[in-house]
Parts: sequence; C-alpha cells; structure tokens
Amino acid sequence: MIYSDATQLEIATCLENASAAFMQFRETSPAQRHQLLRAIAAQLQLARDQLVATAMRETNLPAVRLHNELNRTQFQLESYGAACEKGYWMEASIDVDAAAQPPKPDLRKHLVPLGPVVVFGSSNFPFAYSTAGGDTASALAAGCTVIIKAHPAHLETSILAAACVNRAMEQCQLSPFVFQHVIGNSHQVGEWLVKHPATRAVAFTGSQAGGKQLFDWGAQRSVPIPVFAEMGSVNPVFLLPEKLQQDAAAMAAQLAASFSLGVGQFCTKPGLIIGLESESLQAFVQALQHATWSLQPMPMLHAGIEKAYQLKSKKIVAQPQVELVAESSLPPKEGEGQPLVVKVNASHWLENPLLQEENFGPFTLLVVCKDATEMTAIAQALEGQLTCTVMATQSELSQHKKLMSLLTERCGRLIYNGVPTGVEVCKSMQHGGPYPATTDVRFGAVGEDAIRRFIRPISYQNWPDAQLPLSLQESNPWKIPRFRNGQLE
Amino acid sequence: MIYSDATQLEIATCLENASAAFMQFRETSPAQRHQLLRAIAAQLQLARDQLVATAMRETNLPAVRLHNELNRTQFQLESYGAACEKGYWMEASIDVDAAAQPPKPDLRKHLVPLGPVVVFGSSNFPFAYSTAGGDTASALAAGCTVIIKAHPAHLETSILAAACVNRAMEQCQLSPFVFQHVIGNSHQVGEWLVKHPATRAVAFTGSQAGGKQLFDWGAQRSVPIPVFAEMGSVNPVFLLPEKLQQDAAAMAAQLAASFSLGVGQFCTKPGLIIGLESESLQAFVQALQHATWSLQPMPMLHAGIEKAYQLKSKKIVAQPQVELVAESSLPPKEGEGQPLVVKVNASHWLENPLLQEENFGPFTLLVVCKDATEMTAIAQALEGQLTCTVMATQSELSQHKKLMSLLTERCGRLIYNGVPTGVEVCKSMQHGGPYPATTDVRFGAVGEDAIRRFIRPISYQNWPDAQLPLSLQESNPWKIPRFRNGQLE
Repeated sequence: MIYSDATQLEIATCLENASAAFMQFRETSPAQRHQLLRAIAAQLQLARDQLVATAMRETNLPAVRLHNELNRTQFQLESYGAACEKGYWMEASIDVDAAAQPPKPDLRKHLVPLGPVVVFGSSNFPFAYSTAGGDTASALAAGCTVIIKAHPAHLETSILAAACVNRAMEQCQLSPFVFQHVIGNSHQVGEWLVKHPATRAVAFTGSQAGGKQLFDWGAQRSVPIPVFAEMGSVNPVFLLPEKLQQDAAAMAAQLAASFSLGVGQFCTKPGLIIGLESESLQAFVQALQHATWSLQPMPMLHAGIEKAYQLKSKKIVAQPQVELVAESSLPPKEGEGQPLVVKVNASHWLENPLLQEENFGPFTLLVVCKDATEMTAIAQALEGQLTCTVMATQSELSQHKKLMSLLTERCGRLIYNGVPTGVEVCKSMQHGGPYPATTDVRFGAVGEDAIRRFIRPISYQNWPDAQLPLSLQESNPWKIPRFRNGQLE
Repeated sequence: MIYSDATQLEIATCLENASAAFMQFRETSPAQRHQLLRAIAAQLQLARDQLVATAMRETNLPAVRLHNELNRTQFQLESYGAACEKGYWMEASIDVDAAAQPPKPDLRKHLVPLGPVVVFGSSNFPFAYSTAGGDTASALAAGCTVIIKAHPAHLETSILAAACVNRAMEQCQLSPFVFQHVIGNSHQVGEWLVKHPATRAVAFTGSQAGGKQLFDWGAQRSVPIPVFAEMGSVNPVFLLPEKLQQDAAAMAAQLAASFSLGVGQFCTKPGLIIGLESESLQAFVQALQHATWSLQPMPMLHAGIEKAYQLKSKKIVAQPQVELVAESSLPPKEGEGQPLVVKVNASHWLENPLLQEENFGPFTLLVVCKDATEMTAIAQALEGQLTCTVMATQSELSQHKKLMSLLTERCGRLIYNGVPTGVEVCKSMQHGGPYPATTDVRFGAVGEDAIRRFIRPISYQNWPDAQLPLSLQESNPWKIPRFRNGQLE
C-alpha cells in the first residue's frame, strides 16, 4: 500500500479541525477523559494480535517485548486517566477572605489544557511512545486535542493504533478531530505541523537533531510555543572502587544485559561506564568481555538505524587510544546490531567530543580514570542526561559528595546500584533531564506529571459561582483536591 | 555619581560565583530560605525612608504609592518564604510497593532549584518587580541564586535595595554570591547575562521588544534556557448591554480611575473597552468624558516613557476613523502623561494592527460594535492578554458562552464586574497569559506558584535513605506534604 505525505492544505484543515474540536473537548469532565483513555486501552486490547504482528514485521522487535510494551501503553492510558480523574493536576485553588480590610477579591485558579498538541512518535517504542503512547495519553488527559505525526518506520502499526483511538472516540461520542493521524516522511510535514498557528504545543521522542529542529521551529514562530523533546542520552554509570571490589562480576553481568537490552535501542541505555584503574576494574572488564561474547546480535529497528550504528561504532573504534574490548562471538547478520564494548582513558575521553555522544545500539564505552579527580572531571564534563547511575557502597556515597552533587545537576533520575533501563510508570518517575536530554528540564515524559507539559493556569476574579468552571465552584462537584487560602483542603 | 556598565569579564566572574554559590545555597532548608526572605523584608523596612525618597526622585511616583509598593514587596518576600517552608512546591512523591511482582524499584521525586537565575527588573515597579521584587523572591525561595540587572531608570533605588538584600545574606551567613547586582545601560550587558553558560533561567518584566529579545537569546544558546518574560497587554474590558444599561455611570467612573491609576503605567491597565452601539453606551461615553476631564495629568516614570506615550497617542489619534473622545481638562506639564480616551468602530479596529497594541500610559481606547457578532470578532482577534474583564449581568454571562469561551483562551485572568488593575498576591492569582502577554503561558509571575518557573523534578531510584535529600527521607524531617503511591499523605 502506498501512503503519501499530507499536504500543507491537509495539515491546515487538520489543525483547524483540532482547534474547533478542542473548544468542545476541553469541556469534558476528568471522569469522561478517564473513560476515553480506558476505552482506548480496551480497543488496543481488541486489536492486540494484529498490532503485535504488524509491529513485529515493521520494527523487528520480538513478540514478548511488543506484548509487554502494549501492556505498558495500556497501563499508561489507564493510570493517566485515573490521575486525571483524581484531579491533583488541576491544582484548583481558592482564595477568599470576606473579612479582609481593605477588601480582597474572590480569586480562584485552576489548570486548563493548552489546545491542540502535535505529537511526534518515537521509532523505538512503536506502542508506548508513539500513536497511542505516553504523549498522546497525557495530552488527552490534560484535555488537549492531539495530532500525531506517524513515524515512517512503523506506519502500518501507527495506522492500526490510530484506528483503535478513533473507535474509542466514537464509542465515547467525541469528535473525530480530538485525535488525528498525519502521515509524513518529509521534514516539511513536521515543519507545517509545528508552525501552524493553531498548534499550541509539541511533544517529541527521538534524536537530538530532530528534537532540536522542532524546538527551533517552535521558538521561531511569531507566537512561540513550548516544544518538549526527549532526545536520549548516554546515561553514565559510575563504578566506585569499594563496590567494584565486592561485586565486579555481578555488575558486569547486569550492565551487559542492560546495554544490550532491546538491541541497545533504549534512550536509557547505559552507554558510558566510568571506573578507576585497579585490579577490580580489570576483573570487571574480564567479566564484561565474557558476558558480551555470549550476547546475541539481533535485528535493529530498521536498516537506517543499523547502518548509523555500524558507521558510528567504526568511527569510535578508529579514534586514537580507543580500544575494542569485546564484541559478541557471533558476527551480526544483515540488519543486526552487534554488541560492542570499547575502552578509553579518561584524558582521551575528555578531549574527544565524539566519545561523549550517544551511539544508539548495543554499545557501551568504558572510561578508565587514573584517580578520583579524573572521575570528577568526567562528571563535570557531562552534558545533560536522562539518568546517572552510581554503583557504590553506602559509605562511598557519603564520601563522594562532590561527585553526587555534580551528577544531581546533570540528570533527571539518579539510580543506585541498578541499571537505567526500565522506566517505571508512576508519579515519582522523572523521565527528562537537562538539555540535550530534553529541551526543557522542568518537565518529564513518563508518569502522570507528564500531563503538566500541556496545561496552564487561569484565574477567575469575583466570578459568579454558577458560571465558574465546575472544578472551582463552591460545592466542588468533581470532589477534587483543592487549596483554600494556601492550604490543601 | 557615575556608574559604568559591567564588562563581559565582570559578568563571567559574577556567573561563575553565582554557580559556585548555588551548590551551597541549594542545600539550604526551606526554613532557612524563609528566614532569609524575612530578613530581606526586615532590611527593606530599616531602609524604608531612604528607599522611598530615592524612588520618588527617580520614578516620579508619589510617596503613598511607593510605601504601598514596598509593603507589597515585603509581603511577597514573607509569603513566598512561608510557602517555601510549607513545601507543597517541592511535590515530594514516593512510590514504593514492596509486594509488587515483578518487583518495582523504590522511586522518590521532588523539585529542586534550576541554578543561577538572571532577573531583569521592571521600570514601573521599582520595588515589587525589581531588585528585591517578586522574581527575586520566587527564585530565592526555589533555592536559586540571583543576578539582578538593575533597571537604569531607578539605579540608585536598585543599589539601595540590593544593599538590603546583601545585609540580609550576611545576617543569614550566606555567601554574597547568592545575590548579585549588575549595572548595565546597554543591551550588550543583557545579552552577556542571558548567554553565559552558567545562567539557568531568566525572568523579565517590561516591554514586548525587550522580553522577546531575551527569549530569543535564551532559545538560541547552545544549551537553551527558559526565559519567562511578562510583557504586558491591553487588558480588554467587554461591556455587555444589560449591565451597561444598569450601571453606565458607575462603570465609567471605575474604568476612568483604573486606566489612569499610576499614570496608566500598570501592565494590567484596561487599555481597550468594547461596547455595543446603544443609548447606554452613549451615556457611558459621556460619563467617561466627564470623569476624564477631571483627571490630573501626572509625571510619568521617566522622560523616555513620557515621550513614547505622547508619540504613540498622537499616532493613534491620527489614524483614520479614530476620534479623540476626552482628555483631561488640565494640559500636561513637561514629563506628565495626559489622560486620554479615544474611540473607533469595531471594523476599523479589526483592520488596524496599531490600534491593537498596548499604549503604555493613561490611555484607553473604546471600540464600538454594531452588534454582538462584531464583539465576538474582536474577542477572536485579540492577542494573548494578562487579563480580560467582563462587565455583565449574571444572565448575560450565560447567554454569551461563545464570547466567554474565546476570552478564556486568550488570557490568564478573567475578571467579573471589576477592573484589572490590582493584582492580589496569593496562590490563586495568575499573572501571566498567552503570548505576547508572556513568553510561556504555563507559568505566572505573582503568587507563590511563581516559584515553579525555577524548579525541576529529579527522581532517586533505590537510593539509600540516609543519603536521600531530607525531603525524601522516610522520616520526613521537614514535615512537608508528600505523595505516597499517588495519594497525598
């Protein structure tokens, strides 16, 4: 089947419809939005077999992984819907003081949806961060209408998922323009979507170049709009010596499994491991070699990604002082990504920007420091990260305050004695981080607080109770948590 | 006394010091920050007479107004400090489920300060939105260090206020680099401040051109940063016919007082009044004329602002179909702003962009619509506003759903039967709005939620309790409100 890119006129129509539908959709109650998100999850369930089979064909990801990812997608829809209904996100607030002298106005504030949101799905999560994924779920929970730009690498999957969302809209008697699916291979389609005057916000998961381009388009509009782009990171893992001495082998096994998980195609893949030159580090390297030798090359998402991985890996290995430490014993077949571990000294890492970049695929880079000062220098030199991981004993955590302090400034999530892959969907998750991990460190893309990207405050002053939005009426018909004179009721 | 602009080297030193001081200041407890903000308020009190006398000389604002503004400044410091200590803003959240299968990590999230914040004070609020004003108070409450760029129009006042802040820092045994005062007449100083790599956020109150320039610099950095600029608006007031029939004279008196308050130099000044052609509108115009004739021309903030006001007013009056309806009977003396009311038909307003711009000063523009459709067309054409006001009976509010709906999309605060001037400092205040009222509709500049501009989430995964930040430790030593598994404890 041949699909053609949306034209500028089609995109304009799409945004105008999204804008008109928004004026209705923003009036839905949190309970209605919860119902909608549940209905989408149920529709995905009905189409599960077809979705998974299509995604398998388009992304080369295995069935088990895709089933799990679909479960995650449904959980996101359901849990953001439940959070929407609970209503903390609205931050309803009432300030009244009838006795105040001089008199004070009756002021009431809550958070309302921004308007049409354009979502650019990711290539590596065909379900959870694509068409009916986290950005769509949080924008709909906020009360925004959504225009999803299908990822060309899994277009058929996207069309199927969009059909599920459309059926749920119909079931809930909502306008078909609350959620619209746009096809586009060319960057031009993205530019039209971001620059259309009716677009109010953008969410993106993908490469640094792609995310930055959308951010720039958003900022350059005559009316700038927020663009939240999650652009991945190298997710450094710091191995502190005492812990390394205790657990070198176990840590190596854990990290080998993590950097090669999903063919290394997670934005939280540990792509950088930092250790101090020592006997235990040598033991760690040996264990990492053994673990890597027995890893399987697996097919990557698509030919373009595999090619980029191969080229970048070759380029890195060709850098001065970079040593290939291990590769899987099995050579890769066409389209497969080969697990690779390379090693470099801290001084060379520090002076070579290429080594500081993400290499998307089953690849990790071990940086060997001659002392703790070099380790701190690495931390100091790090760009913004989604995650930083510390493998340490508890006493090492307290001894390395400076290092911890530097890492805190450079990431959105700190992990202790674990691996960064595995992004739990819950309120306490922060999936975000300083630039270039994302374009706005103040927001995140996973967990119910992802809703916050798409809402804004509005105050009502001396507004008659009956004409107030329901969330601010004195009787609190939605029974949401509210602040009164600065205290949560 | 002659002050010279900071050099690029001085600014670099300033930001480096701010960055180093931040690593300490961010560790202060909310109670310590509350204490600091109280100490600043107390120091302002000690210097009150000198502050007011100096500001009177520099801004031409009268003593009563300046005393009130200083009270407001102290209230902001104290109330943001209290909110800081209460701790809702940290949104501490814990997700633990020891029984989960498969096991889930222990995840804890809270909001932490961004880092050094550059504040550009306003010309029209020498105290409340300048050196020790709302942006500084909210950035310090967040735990950020502050660099204030003094407004050249009230430099001596700024130096005095900065000295108060410095004394408070000393009293609280904090580094002098937690708060630094920078002098600069040239835009170059602003550019260096925004573009320095250590700067993490910018807050600005002032003109659209100035705010947009800072926003662009922030977005164009190699690491983009958030720039929150509050750039004013025309604050439209819609007069609905039934209400107008009942209260034309009272409404005219109220609006005349509001548009001329503080010589019309408030960003919430009602600069646009929209009514339906009718006998009651004629009565309203007559009453507005009478009220305006008896208004006093008063000295504006400085010669530049007065000159700009005079020029823009002349230009507006010279537009085709624009009619000068009233001016104060007393002509203005040099440097004074003359209260002016002009009138135009809706069709001309709609086609003339100049008439849609803010004219900073004691000026308002009445737009006469021939029917409700034209009134809706005006609402539709409005740019983003800080406020929209509706003068209406309750039944008119429910009859004009479309109009209300349009206004909701176009502002940060909706006022019923009141005036937009007077911005209460409380949690339920939203002082912000869609572009060009501000550069980010998701935030506000007044009330404790202004803190949110300067904070970001960070998660800790499986982190040992003793090494967690105090706000996330199991024993909750700061006794702040916290979410546990999605529910507020």
